[in-house]
Amino acid sequence: MLDFSDLSVVDAHCHPYRRADNLSADEWVNAVSFGGGSPEYLQAGGIEVDAAAQAMLQRVKRDTLYFRYMLRRMAEFFQVEATVDAVVAARNRAIKDNGYGVYAQGLHQAGKIETLIVDDGHPLPQVDLRRFRAQVGVEVLPVFRIEALIQQLLDEDSAWPEFQRAYDEGIAMALSDGGYVGLKSIIAYRTGLDIDPRSRSADQGMVALEKIRRARGRSGDAIKNLRDHLFCRAIELCIDFDAPFQVHTGMGDWEVHLDACRPALLMELLRYPAYRACKFLLVHTGYPYHAEAGYIANALPNIWCDLSEGLPFAGNAGARIIAEVLEMAPLSRVCYGSDTYGSPEPFYTSALLGKQALAQAMQQLINDGFMSEAQAREAAKMILSDNARELYDAS
Amino acid sequence: MLDFSDLSVVDAHCHPYRRADNLSADEWVNAVSFGGGSPEYLQAGGIEVDAAAQAMLQRVKRDTLYFRYMLRRMAEFFQVEATVDAVVAARNRAIKDNGYGVYAQGLHQAGKIETLIVDDGHPLPQVDLRRFRAQVGVEVLPVFRIEALIQQLLDEDSAWPEFQRAYDEGIAMALSDGGYVGLKSIIAYRTGLDIDPRSRSADQGMVALEKIRRARGRSGDAIKNLRDHLFCRAIELCIDFDAPFQVHTGMGDWEVHLDACRPALLMELLRYPAYRACKFLLVHTGYPYHAEAGYIANALPNIWCDLSEGLPFAGNAGARIIAEVLEMAPLSRVCYGSDTYGSPEPFYTSALLGKQALAQAMQQLINDGFMSEAQAREAAKMILSDNARELYDAS
Amino acid sequence: MLDFSDLSVVDAHCHPYRRADNLSADEWVNAVSFGGGSPEYLQAGGIEVDAAAQAMLQRVKRDTLYFRYMLRRMAEFFQVEATVDAVVAARNRAIKDNGYGVYAQGLHQAGKIETLIVDDGHPLPQVDLRRFRAQVGVEVLPVFRIEALIQQLLDEDSAWPEFQRAYDEGIAMALSDGGYVGLKSIIAYRTGLDIDPRSRSADQGMVALEKIRRARGRSGDAIKNLRDHLFCRAIELCIDFDAPFQVHTGMGDWEVHLDACRPALLMELLRYPAYRACKFLLVHTGYPYHAEAGYIANALPNIWCDLSEGLPFAGNAGARIIAEVLEMAPLSRVCYGSDTYGSPEPFYTSALLGKQALAQAMQQLINDGFMSEAQAREAAKMILSDNARELYDAS
Repeated sequence: MLDFSDLSVVDAHCHPYRRADNLSADEWVNAVSFGGGSPEYLQAGGIEVDAAAQAMLQRVKRDTLYFRYMLRRMAEFFQVEATVDAVVAARNRAIKDNGYGVYAQGLHQAGKIETLIVDDGHPLPQVDLRRFRAQVGVEVLPVFRIEALIQQLLDEDSAWPEFQRAYDEGIAMALSDGGYVGLKSIIAYRTGLDIDPRSRSADQGMVALEKIRRARGRSGDAIKNLRDHLFCRAIELCIDFDAPFQVHTGMGDWEVHLDACRPALLMELLRYPAYRACKFLLVHTGYPYHAEAGYIANALPNIWCDLSEGLPFAGNAGARIIAEVLEMAPLSRVCYGSDTYGSPEPFYTSALLGKQALAQAMQQLINDGFMSEAQAREAAKMILSDNARELYDAS
Repeated sequence: MLDFSDLSVVDAHCHPYRRADNLSADEWVNAVSFGGGSPEYLQAGGIEVDAAAQAMLQRVKRDTLYFRYMLRRMAEFFQVEATVDAVVAARNRAIKDNGYGVYAQGLHQAGKIETLIVDDGHPLPQVDLRRFRAQVGVEVLPVFRIEALIQQLLDEDSAWPEFQRAYDEGIAMALSDGGYVGLKSIIAYRTGLDIDPRSRSADQGMVALEKIRRARGRSGDAIKNLRDHLFCRAIELCIDFDAPFQVHTGMGDWEVHLDACRPALLMELLRYPAYRACKFLLVHTGYPYHAEAGYIANALPNIWCDLSEGLPFAGNAGARIIAEVLEMAPLSRVCYGSDTYGSPEPFYTSALLGKQALAQAMQQLINDGFMSEAQAREAAKMILSDNARELYDAS
Repeated sequence: MLDFSDLSVVDAHCHPYRRADNLSADEWVNAVSFGGGSPEYLQAGGIEVDAAAQAMLQRVKRDTLYFRYMLRRMAEFFQVEATVDAVVAARNRAIKDNGYGVYAQGLHQAGKIETLIVDDGHPLPQVDLRRFRAQVGVEVLPVFRIEALIQQLLDEDSAWPEFQRAYDEGIAMALSDGGYVGLKSIIAYRTGLDIDPRSRSADQGMVALEKIRRARGRSGDAIKNLRDHLFCRAIELCIDFDAPFQVHTGMGDWEVHLDACRPALLMELLRYPAYRACKFLLVHTGYPYHAEAGYIANALPNIWCDLSEGLPFAGNAGARIIAEVLEMAPLSRVCYGSDTYGSPEPFYTSALLGKQALAQAMQQLINDGFMSEAQAREAAKMILSDNARELYDAS
């Protein structure tokens, strides 16, 4: 079996996290689990969240394959029994004995993680990146989430000329002095990926914003028209600054538009002549619609696929996602990512899982006559770090 | 290789069947095959159904992997050659020699099938469940198909107050004295899964029904509005009675809305605050869109996935469906089911196939470090029976 | 492992190609690669196509698994190093030494390819089929692409009576004296697969054409209505002539309607009573939505699935596509195809890949108890040639 454990990793999409020294078992499970129905979610449905409901929520989180894998790898790391209580106790003790920074850095180093490309739009309030950098001890390069800026400008209730100026300046500042290496959009959570490419007209932004400001809730499609315009404008700015644009595609907790998150919906926009110079990273490679993302990365020249979220949150899906994305996507267009957050443990176990899944996928390709073992190792290196370094110009 | 053949089975979704002692080869093939283009289907297209057309239809049914597997397992059961003629002759002889009940019970016992959760809305006219129970000799728990009640009420042409009262009472009766353990909807066959959650307003039901009754065929969206309302009302009644709601998702013979049967279309409804207390079973786990169902079962707290139809009718798909549903769905949220009907043979061979597919999927998870062999066996037990018993409170 | 290398092949969907004796490495890569973002594509987006852009485009084409496989098999064929330069030099030399015809025929023979069913609507201008036949030395049976005729009639700007007469006559001529063995449509590239079955009314054609001719660009849905009508009319003519209808489904370079190319969208049309006598070949079996095509081939009696495009252009997808289509599609309803073009090399390597993928898929079916080794070989023979011969009545 191939072994890529010595290869270094650039995590092309993840989130910063806050120091948390001492967690209860339930708190830790919540912190590292994929975002789903929480106690608050049930309460908003008028459901009493008693001990039974709490136990049910904990149970389903612990019953996912993602969690099982993560727990077993952490138990091996600490050399303790593979139970939540044993692992959490070992984690809290390690932090107490050695300090949080030593613990976090140790896990990132154990996974050979050299660089984190972080979307600091989650969690809110934003994590202080200087403090996070000091904690994790690896290179941290942020991307700028346009929806955070849009929300701020909507809250300020400016008229269009000021809104437009502040939006452009906010992005320009982020991509120059701000140290951000690219943009990120979660429009799939807001108004969906079926963006009309003609929305780049500033007139559309102006009319939509005026409707939103005046219509007292009867603004119809105005918010979609505004977001579509600002998305298209962000593409233009990415081209100006030669910065990549991360776009969330595919599933994403319970709030995403599940009927408007498919990469296929982006196709008309991505091939629009005015946007062809922009480099797009299809975040989560659209899982479970990842074949669509792979296809687009073949048919259009400036599309990258990020493997995060499916890896590690879809548990056993890793080798399948990699194999299926590579059906069409060029080997130079696929990047490892994790979408992890909350605590250092899943960053480490996601890197383990990614390397294991990559080894399985590549072994099959060798067996089936697609490449030699040396080429498979070279491809793994590209996917684990080189492709992302090239995309973010971060070598 | 893991072996789950000793584990008992709850079939979370299937249909009752009628006694048929002596079948010709063609009749048996029709009885146990997945519903597709029949002679009647061709005739409705103005096609002469001569001997050549009959032979063609038989051939394609016999050329499916589902049928090949079922035939081979039954040949092994009877210790005869794996041909249709030999198996049908052995079947008819066994019934003649031992009686229908002994034969049917023998097959259910051979598959370790302890409980059948049956949707008695198919076939029509309805099978007498007392007689069916006596024949199969295992626990039979029915679910109540709301579309049968809706059709009856439409046929009676009552005004809204009476329609509304009769609908509520019909469901309440079914879930209390009627002995039904849950509801079932096939709205994916009628008006599609894109149900507006706000349809629960009784006003919508009243206006829609009045349009249907008065519009002489020009009722526009009225039938969809009515069905959407009655679906939402059924959810409320399920909450009141603490009964699960089975919803058909994914493919289903030639009549389903193939463009409106995806689990993703249900997401907005399933997360609607008013419905969060209802337990939903996504029947057929939306095959081949089963990754969507698995995802929803992770992101929302009260969603179960039923493996039926894909297992056994999609032949070799079993291990793939299980592995892909488990990418996101918690192990405690997936239930074995078969969707079988017509004759006892496919109930038995579906259980064999399900256990085989589960063993393959679980072995891969062990190999990939997700769980121990003991945990895999525990998970198999949950999927084969415990999860369904818990959902239906049928322990 | 099973070995099907001795089995002969009918390629159920491919394209004719032109003689090209001496190609540079870059020219050859372009000629045999899947259609994607070309220099012209970038230029149309206002992007300067300098040496760096050219190198980038070449690199991503060479970094696909399809290309890697093809290159390695050709290197083995020529017994040279697996580099583009070595393989292209060997190819050019073989043509120079032996002549183009001998080279091309040698590759088709090496792949045991006996018959090519070609869509001569690509490339344009059309390849002379008599010359192509002489070059490749195998049976060549063309299908008639209706969009070529439609474009010609639109260019002639005839009124409806003449348009209608010429359309019917053009198809009738093609299917009788013209030697075409079926029709082909790429409506998925034009107005999408969501075709209203009621479009067969000639009135719809007339009204739509008049709108197109008079509306000076403001014709709204007229072009869709016209294409839908002509598609339905083509079905009727296929029934009259007992000829199969090839319909592009699934992905297809950067121009296809990625949101309107799914086989599921065809379901309502395919089951419409007036069209039930027509034999449809779902070209590319809708990859990556191939499970939908397999399902339709099970639920309706006259649907065939063609494996082309996914095989070979989706690289490692072959065994997966075959296994997943066969989950529902009868073994007698699946046909090998390649969708290859441009030069003889990919025709040969696609046949190798197809046989390898088929052997893998069939071996798994044997292992899992679905069939015997003899039955697997028989099924492979059906998929590689018999099913297509039966469909095209070309035995």
